[in-house]
Amino acid sequence: MKLVKHILETKGRDVWSIGPDDSVFDAITMMSERSVGALPVLYAGKLIGIISERDYTRKVILKGKASKETPVKEIMSAPVIFTTPDAPIEKCMALMTARHIRHLPIVDGGELIGIISIGDLVKAIIEQQETWIRELENHVLEQTSIV
Amino acid sequence: MKLVKHILETKGRDVWSIGPDDSVFDAITMMSERSVGALPVLYAGKLIGIISERDYTRKVILKGKASKETPVKEIMSAPVIFTTPDAPIEKCMALMTARHIRHLPIVDGGELIGIISIGDLVKAIIEQQETWIRELENHVLEQTSIV
Repeated sequence: MKLVKHILETKGRDVWSIGPDDSVFDAITMMSERSVGALPVLYAGKLIGIISERDYTRKVILKGKASKETPVKEIMSAPVIFTTPDAPIEKCMALMTARHIRHLPIVDGGELIGIISIGDLVKAIIEQQETWIRELENHVLEQTSIV
Repeated sequence: MKLVKHILETKGRDVWSIGPDDSVFDAITMMSERSVGALPVLYAGKLIGIISERDYTRKVILKGKASKETPVKEIMSAPVIFTTPDAPIEKCMALMTARHIRHLPIVDGGELIGIISIGDLVKAIIEQQETWIRELENHVLEQTSIV
């Protein structure tokens, strides 16, 4: 069974984050530069929220706000739904589907150690299925060689 | 094997779309009202592009543009990657992962008949796995009753 930490091992543990008092403009600039769809919001090293392309799309101009004058804390999603490195990927998939979220921060001992996206999970599942197929094929080959 | 059309049957075939000359502001208003993350762009009934929360986040204010004065065609992603109703969901997953996209329009005989998101695919896969588990459990029960 594949766990969240196995995804982090492949993906790397670089986590970009933003502060609650930084501007939304700074947040979307960082998202674009880092090619990510969401950023964890950290205050004094603690995960207090998450800001995504969806938060930006729905809560700034449509609410009459401007991205350069709006602080991240005003539009971030909080409290944050997160998980731990030992969570199985199937459980994360079910959680993300049920809560309609695309990004899941990974917290270990109170510390943010990574973030996985629904795309990362799908990629991991495809790889897992390919491994199973190879194992099944090997099994068939072994049986054939016995006969 | 589950196909795209099976997802559309559950999800319904209502497709919201926008025109290339509509403003980006109108597009994000519709996305918010319909609770969707992307809209197909239709011109004379033909699918010519797709506009997503990502396009909005990366190609408007960060490029010095304003959402009310920018037409959809200026920031939409085109040409569009799409599929047909008979595509297996595993193939769609692989396609979306490889191309880093979250939304896949479904075209049948030249006509747009739906759009599926990566979340829809994940949901379908979870349901499929639950069915397999139930089948395996029944199989085990049958074997036990023979013994």
